[in-house]
Parts: sequence; C-alpha cells; structure tokens
Amino acid sequence: MTLTQHAPAPAAAGVRPGNQASLIVHGQDRTGIVAAVSSVLSKHQANIVQLDQYSDDPHGGTFFQRTVFSAPNLKAILPAVEADLQRQLAGGFELDFQLRDMSVPKRVAIFASKSDHCLLDLLWRHRRGELPVNVAMVVSNHTDHADEVRFFGIPFFHVPSPAGPDKSAAEAEHLKLLAGNVDFVVLARYMQILSNDFIERLGVPIINIHHSFLPAFIGAGPYAKAKQRGVKLVGATAHYVTEDLDEGPIIEQDVVRVNHAHTVEDLQRRGADVERAVLSRAVQWHSEDRVIRHGNHTIVFA
Amino acid sequence: MTLTQHAPAPAAAGVRPGNQASLIVHGQDRTGIVAAVSSVLSKHQANIVQLDQYSDDPHGGTFFQRTVFSAPNLKAILPAVEADLQRQLAGGFELDFQLRDMSVPKRVAIFASKSDHCLLDLLWRHRRGELPVNVAMVVSNHTDHADEVRFFGIPFFHVPSPAGPDKSAAEAEHLKLLAGNVDFVVLARYMQILSNDFIERLGVPIINIHHSFLPAFIGAGPYAKAKQRGVKLVGATAHYVTEDLDEGPIIEQDVVRVNHAHTVEDLQRRGADVERAVLSRAVQWHSEDRVIRHGNHTIVFA
Amino acid sequence: MTLTQHAPAPAAAGVRPGNQASLIVHGQDRTGIVAAVSSVLSKHQANIVQLDQYSDDPHGGTFFQRTVFSAPNLKAILPAVEADLQRQLAGGFELDFQLRDMSVPKRVAIFASKSDHCLLDLLWRHRRGELPVNVAMVVSNHTDHADEVRFFGIPFFHVPSPAGPDKSAAEAEHLKLLAGNVDFVVLARYMQILSNDFIERLGVPIINIHHSFLPAFIGAGPYAKAKQRGVKLVGATAHYVTEDLDEGPIIEQDVVRVNHAHTVEDLQRRGADVERAVLSRAVQWHSEDRVIRHGNHTIVFA
Amino acid sequence: MTLTQHAPAPAAAGVRPGNQASLIVHGQDRTGIVAAVSSVLSKHQANIVQLDQYSDDPHGGTFFQRTVFSAPNLKAILPAVEADLQRQLAGGFELDFQLRDMSVPKRVAIFASKSDHCLLDLLWRHRRGELPVNVAMVVSNHTDHADEVRFFGIPFFHVPSPAGPDKSAAEAEHLKLLAGNVDFVVLARYMQILSNDFIERLGVPIINIHHSFLPAFIGAGPYAKAKQRGVKLVGATAHYVTEDLDEGPIIEQDVVRVNHAHTVEDLQRRGADVERAVLSRAVQWHSEDRVIRHGNHTIVFA
Repeated sequence: MTLTQHAPAPAAAGVRPGNQASLIVHGQDRTGIVAAVSSVLSKHQANIVQLDQYSDDPHGGTFFQRTVFSAPNLKAILPAVEADLQRQLAGGFELDFQLRDMSVPKRVAIFASKSDHCLLDLLWRHRRGELPVNVAMVVSNHTDHADEVRFFGIPFFHVPSPAGPDKSAAEAEHLKLLAGNVDFVVLARYMQILSNDFIERLGVPIINIHHSFLPAFIGAGPYAKAKQRGVKLVGATAHYVTEDLDEGPIIEQDVVRVNHAHTVEDLQRRGADVERAVLSRAVQWHSEDRVIRHGNHTIVFA
Repeated sequence: MTLTQHAPAPAAAGVRPGNQASLIVHGQDRTGIVAAVSSVLSKHQANIVQLDQYSDDPHGGTFFQRTVFSAPNLKAILPAVEADLQRQLAGGFELDFQLRDMSVPKRVAIFASKSDHCLLDLLWRHRRGELPVNVAMVVSNHTDHADEVRFFGIPFFHVPSPAGPDKSAAEAEHLKLLAGNVDFVVLARYMQILSNDFIERLGVPIINIHHSFLPAFIGAGPYAKAKQRGVKLVGATAHYVTEDLDEGPIIEQDVVRVNHAHTVEDLQRRGADVERAVLSRAVQWHSEDRVIRHGNHTIVFA
Repeated sequence: MTLTQHAPAPAAAGVRPGNQASLIVHGQDRTGIVAAVSSVLSKHQANIVQLDQYSDDPHGGTFFQRTVFSAPNLKAILPAVEADLQRQLAGGFELDFQLRDMSVPKRVAIFASKSDHCLLDLLWRHRRGELPVNVAMVVSNHTDHADEVRFFGIPFFHVPSPAGPDKSAAEAEHLKLLAGNVDFVVLARYMQILSNDFIERLGVPIINIHHSFLPAFIGAGPYAKAKQRGVKLVGATAHYVTEDLDEGPIIEQDVVRVNHAHTVEDLQRRGADVERAVLSRAVQWHSEDRVIRHGNHTIVFA
Repeated sequence: MTLTQHAPAPAAAGVRPGNQASLIVHGQDRTGIVAAVSSVLSKHQANIVQLDQYSDDPHGGTFFQRTVFSAPNLKAILPAVEADLQRQLAGGFELDFQLRDMSVPKRVAIFASKSDHCLLDLLWRHRRGELPVNVAMVVSNHTDHADEVRFFGIPFFHVPSPAGPDKSAAEAEHLKLLAGNVDFVVLARYMQILSNDFIERLGVPIINIHHSFLPAFIGAGPYAKAKQRGVKLVGATAHYVTEDLDEGPIIEQDVVRVNHAHTVEDLQRRGADVERAVLSRAVQWHSEDRVIRHGNHTIVFA
C-alpha cells in the first residue's frame, strides 16, 4: 500500500537528452579563445547547441564562456575532447575549464527546518521534471516534514541541532551523510548557521535563500521592522554561501509588491512566495551549469 | 516668436472637476467614525465619490480615512461642512482632519541639479495633464536646464550652492522664493543636503527620490558597488524628507531587472528609468491627497 | 499508520477571527448610502474594520461597497443588523446587499484533470492557512491525483467523462456531489466543457483559469502557436464561468516574460507558474468577498 | 539666440567605441560554424567582445549568431574580414551574414501624429546618449510637434495625410525624404496606414508600437472595450511592420497593472507609459543589431 502512496517519478520530458555536455571556460581574456574552443569541438564533430560568452572588459578583462554541445557518441569522445581542451585552454591560454556530461544530473541534498514552502516547491518542480537534479536526500533539524518528503520517494534524515553554539556533532553527522553523495546543497529556509569549518570540509557549493528588503533590516524580526517602516516591496535573494554570512555571490533576486493594509503575516506569506520562486530559479540555473562564480559576484547565462 | 516656442498648457481633460473635495481623517479608532463623517456629508447633500478606510488594528488602533465627495455648489457649502466636521470629528472623536477643495491644484516647486530625467518626466506629465499640480517654479544649483524649463513656460531660478558646509545663504534665498508660494517641494535628483533648520522653517512636505538596492550600498558610488556585488535588481524609493536623511516615510518603491552584462552606466540608466517612474507616482498620489503620514510610514490609498 | 501520513490541519493563524462579517452593497448610486450603512452598524456597536467604496460614475452610476465589521457578540446581533439593512438599503435605497459571517469559511469543490500544478498549489496554500476556505472535495475525470489529494485529508471523487459530446451522465453525478455541499467551484485546469444547463442548475459561482497571450491564439496548441509567433510574454486569466466559454468576468490576470530560447515545453512550464499564482489570488479574493460581479466585469477590492 | 534654445548634443558617453563591429550570421545549422567565424576573427587579431548563439533545433535547425568584436585598426581590417567571411560562411556553409561598423550609428526617421509620448521619449533618450542612432528627421501628418522637435536640433517635416484612402501623394513625398537618408523608420504612434507598395519601395525595416490586451479588442475604441471587460493588465507590443497590419514579427512586449477604479483615460495614460518603454527598448535593440528576423518571429539577443 505504501508504494502506491508515492508520487510518480519525474516525467521523461524533463530529463536532459543523453548526448549533451556543458563546457565552462573562465579566465584572463585574450584574442582567440572562442576560436580555440570551437575548433576543438569541431574537430570531434561535436555540434554547438548553445554558446554564451561575456568579457567584463574588452581590454584585458576576465573571459567567461558557457557552451553546450552535442554529439551522437558523446560519452565515447568526451575523454579526447577533455584532453584537447586541456592542451589548448589550460596549456595555451592558462584558462580554467569544467566539462560535464549533462545526461548525469547533479546530486543535491536539501536542508530544511520548520518552513516548508521552499522545500515543497523544489520537490514538486523536481517531480514535474522541471529540475534536472537527483534529490539524494532531505536533511532537517526537525521531524515535521518526514512524511511529506518520503511521500515523494526521497530519503529523509533527521539531524537534531543542539541549543548551544557548538554544532560540531550535528555537522559531523551532516558530513557523514553528504560526503561523496552530493554535488551541491540547498538551504531551503534552513535556520541554522553553518560553521566555516563545515563549509570548507564539505567542499561543494551551497545555495541559500533569504528575504531582502529596501532598505535592509538587520537582526531579528525583519518583517515586523519592514511593516513598521512601511515598505512597498518585499524581496528574496538566492546566493552561494561563503564565510561571510548572507554576503556570498548573488544568483537571483526578485520582489513582490505589498501595501499598508498587509499585516506582518501577509508580508511573510508574500515573502514566502517570492522566496520559493527565486530559490527554484537559482537551483535550476546551477543545475544546468548556467552560473559562474567570479570574485564576489556571478555571471548567469539564463 | 518666443511665445510659439512654449509648450501648450495642460490638457483640460487632466484638470480635476471643479466640484470635488477631499477629506482626510486620522486618529484613534472608535466605533462610529464612518457614520459620523458620512452623515455630515449626507446632511449637506454631498455625494461620496471615493472612500477608502483603514485601521491598523481593529481593537483600538489608528484610524485612517480618505473621502472624495462632490456637490454641485461645493464652494458654497464647504465652510458649513468644515464647521460640522470640526464639531463632530475634532470635538466628538478628537480626530484630526483635513478638508481640501480639489479644484485648486497644489502648488509645487521642483528642485534639480545636473540630472534631468526626473525633472523632465514631471514636466512632460504635467503638460499632458497627468499631474493635477501647479508647477510654481523650478530651482536649481546649476543653470543647465534653464532653457528647457522655460520652454514649458515655467519660471526657473538659479540658486548656486557654495562649496563649503554652510548652505545658509542659499537656503535663505530658497526660503524667500518658496515662502507662501508652494504647498510642497519635490527634490528631483537635487544633490544638495537640506539642513534641519531649513526643513523646519519651510514647513511644507518635501518629497525626495533616491536609488535603492538589495542589499543597500552605503556611501559614494553605489552603482559601482552594486555592479561589483552582482545585484540582479536596481530600485528606487520616493519618500518624505525628515531630519533623518533618506530615512523618512516611504511613499513608493519599484525595481528593474539587471544582469551581469550591464555596465555601471547601464545600471545608472535603468536606475534613472525606475527613479522617474517612482517619483512621478509619488507626486501624483501626494497631489491627490492619497498619502497619509503616520509615524515613520505612510498609508497610500492608490 | 495512514493517519500519520496526513498533512496537518490548516494553521490557526490563517483562520479568520470569529467576530467579523462582510457586507457587500451594490446598486444605483445615490447620496447617503455610506451614511445609511454606517449608521446601522454604529447603532449595533459594530466597528468598521475595512471599507472600500467605488462608484463607476459620480453622476448616477452604479455604487459598490465592501465593508468588514466586527462586534464582540457578532453572531447574536447579525439577524438584527440584517433586518435593519433590509429596511434601509433594500427598502429605502432599492439596493442589493449580501451579509456574511466571515468565521464560516466558504465551501469549495476543486475540479482537476491531468495537470496538477493549480490543484496542488491550492491544497498547499490551504494547508498553510492562506486560503480561508473549506475544501469540501476534489473531483476529477482521472484518477491520477487520488493519493495526493487524500494525503491532504480531502475527499477525492472520480467521475469519468465519456468521449462523446453528451456529458449529461457525468454532470448528473457532479450535481449529486455538489448540491448543497459547496458555495463555489474552482476549475483547476479541468479540461472538460461544462454545459449551460449544468452551470445554471449548479447555481453557485465557478472560477476558471486559462492561459492568455498577446495576441490571443485560438484553438488547439496555443503554446506552439505562441512559440511560432515569438511572443515575449505568457499570461493567465482567472474568470467566472458564464455561458460564453472563456468570456466571463475577469477576476485576475498576470504574465511572465519568455524569450526566443524557450521551447514550447518551457513556455508551458512558465505558463503553469503564472496560472497557479493567478488562480490562487482569485480564489483568495473570492473567499474573502473581495470580488463583486457587475455586467461582464468585476470590481475587486484587493 | 535660437542656438542656445537647442538641447545639447548626445553625451559622448553614449556613443559606441570607434573600434567595434557587429556580425550577424543566420542560416542552416551545421557543425563548425562558430569555429569558422571565430578563426576568421582570430586570424585578423580581432577580439570577441560579445557572442550570443542560438539554434532553434540542435538537429538540423536554423542557426543564429551575433558577435561583437573589436580591433585597434578596425576600419582598416574590415574589408579583409568581410572577404574571409564571404569565402567561409557564404561559400563554405551557405550562410547569410551582415557585418557592420558599430561606430557609424544607424540613421532613423521617426513618424508621429498627435500623440507625443513615444516621440518625446525617444528624443530624450537619444539626447541622453542612450540610443546609438542618428535621428535624421521627424515626419508628421500634423504640425503640433514642430517646435519641440526642432528644439532638439532635429529636422521636422510636415507631410499632410489626405482624408481619402489614396495616400499615394503623401507616400511619394515620404519616399523622397527617406530614400538614401535612413536605415530604419520608427512609427511612434503614427496613426496612418502604410500601403504595401510603400513598405516595399522603402526597403528598410519599419518598427511600430501598438497597444495590446488580454484578450485582444479588435476595431475602434480598444481602451473603452478593455474597460468594459474589466481587464487587469494593459500592454504594448513593438513589432516590425509587414504587409499584414499589426501582425509582423514581435520585438518586445510588456504590460502594466490596472484595476476597476481606473477610467478609460487612466488606462490610456498607463498604456502610454508602457508603449514608450517598450518602443524605446525595441529601437535600442534594433540599433545595436540585437534583433534577427526569422519567418514571422524574432531572435533577440538582449
């Protein structure tokens, strides 16, 4: 009986075609990079499906390129493509590059606490085939959402967070669950601070979502402060987590309109709507290798 | 010949009908206020055209009401309406109220510096009959826009702003120009700080527009900082000027989307577009008595 | 065990306070209506919490008013309030009015087919306490969503729709399920046409959601046509169902931006996002008596 | 004296750098096109500043590429670049391409009638250096805006439009003014129909702006019909003019929110705001070679 209670698997329509790869190139701009990349792909009969390029300064700035290419025998040729790119880009141009077979979805762990709007929005979008990821697990410091998560056929792990400042036991358990199992982590309104040590040892990107206001309201009760100040917009920001809490590179932002008649609870509900929309876009773009980090900002080829 | 160079007068279509008045009521909420107001109007055969009411707490909060009413012989009955309201509202309920004949447009002075996008947007909207105001004058610390302003048939006054911190001479000249001549002032990207003494002695509302970001970027060069941080939205906030610079009650806010490919100049241009849109809405709503100040926020019946 | 699989009941926070009622007044505008309404409420010690008024022409147009009022002993005084309003409004002014105790949520049936984005968005929002309704049942011509709906603790009824044009047997079963049990019906991407006879015999409002484009694309495959035409916006419209299919009074509309790189499937996903947002707003506003139908359009006091 | 009445010339900041060219490539997709283009540019020491590529079907669809490149001695090398591209692209791949020196702004004629919101928005943006075009002339069937246009230092030509259906005399005069003098034409709320013969003989792109609604309202008085139907959004569409009136390829669209309290005049004003915003974006993108026409739609690399 439990089996029939599971939501159906992601629709095949949403799965990436099996013969596409992404290539991210990133480094000091010089004449001839596009030509070098495209001649390598051309040599291997790979067809460029999408190409976005950006240079932050035409005169000696930083160069960014995202290329999606296809080939009938992609898996067979990828090692040779990589070797050629290594020679041309890393050797000749001293550029960084990442090559990835897009038919293998990135594996993600979603962290949540009591709020479920971001968590559920991600799970539903994943089920509808909108997010090309493999949701490896959901981790929470509460048990509230265990049934819902398992209803989607996804493992749920409860890791309590102790009251004091020392989170090392919980973080050790997190690392045991995550190590080798995920390619990135999404904090879907996870209300615990991660230590710098944890971030460093985890070693994969972490995406966070938080509310945003004009102006910013620091500290506890931001929605109550926003109400008191009479803001006309409530927003959300998705960003990569760095050691500077809530100050990492911004991936996506959006706002929703509010007015004087909205209560603090109304502001929170509208904020929740924009949070889930912004987070799901950030997760999708990250999954599709559309986001390149550079310094404290991002290049998003969306 | 100069005469024909003047832009035509505002279209009659935009002028408010001559027989409408606005009534703002504001104070401690109690049962029966709406009934008291409407029975006074009903007694004088005045017809309620618009009525918006808001209470920030049903149990003993603050009450706000904006009523627009019409009567064929409005100017004749207004003094008696006012006397009745004084007895009922100020006497019986201890409420503040403002009654205004809407056929008399508010008089405004626009202050500008080098940037003209907000100034010109207001002047064009006024000419098209969209802003029910009387633009009494434009004041600037530069002469750049004298011809353009006079082209609209509006007086332009140049009041230079000295380099040092002491603005008292310029402010004295401002007060001489404004005193008794204007009902409010709009700072349309006027890049000089107003002293608290000036704000107090001026005694009429001042509306300002400034850029807004998520997060905020304090100090000089905010657009360069926003570019560096990779923001995805650029915004603007219109607010009443108080002694706390840029911290007064917010009237209106909006944002526009930007991306990594936009230069600092692109951000500024997009910011200029949203600034002029936000400021013109704020000016229109203030002109139509749609904005009620309360504490450090506003009630906007837009 | 099945019990623990149920999602928790709506949060108490979302439930309307038990002592508020809504009053909708609608009819020929005349001087004194607001005074008449508010003096009745004042007489019964009822406190006006919200009041929105609109007249489509100050000179003899149609008058619309929505009032929310509270009283400690609301249920006790409602009959007397109604009798007084009947005398004053229906008698004196020949106006229509509806009085409703807002502590009793409206009962709704949701109809769905294969698509689940609108259905699930409504169920999640309801569970989070955002929609002040009682979801009496979900009805579908498919069985796909039975488990998910029952997971929310809501009855699911499968009423197959036969292939031919004669839907009378299915509609008879619908009427048996709905009669006396619901106050309105929401078509959440229900892909069957309702007969005029059914609409008439049902006798409660029906809200529908459908995609919208600029320009419109008539007939089958609208998203494919929109892609071919290169539209830059994809939208959705929520409206009341009338005998003119998809031509009933509009409650809410919104759009989302698309570009040339979006596939037909991308357009459909973006369309689904805006559909669920628009439908949930329409359902909320209808539930809170914020929508007044007049001719072929609506007055929305949102 | 007249000289000082002229608005200042466009700011140097807005002028494109003198050493950039754009290259548009368009045709049947095949493996190796990007490599062929970039190796030609690389051979001439040209640096790729922007590159956007799109294929409407990875398997044998149509290929679109926009490349902006720079070179210190651009004007000197352009003929040789063109010859190489001709050999590689037109010869080897049978592709169409257009190469353009971006330091030479496109020349545009703006056509207007009585409404000035679109005309003036374009002229102000041009003056602020936001539109990299040379406004060669303004043509109108009315004289209302002669002084304003000349205030910007731009030639104004009055070509009356006779009442009957035969516009051949006016169109002959238009052709005499335009032939050889402009690279494209903008209809900035020009309320006259252009004959197919005129469009064909003119031989340069024509951009038009018109209002858009969900649903569409055909025929006269669309705003009055939209008001009657209670639309919640008012929009605008900028498109290339083809023989099918108002049915040409869409360049840009946007909407603005309205509600029941807006009069028909309010809808028109809000519509005017969105019209000018949409038209100015379309003109900017066309000026920067960001729009590629294909069948009845566009690829916009914005």
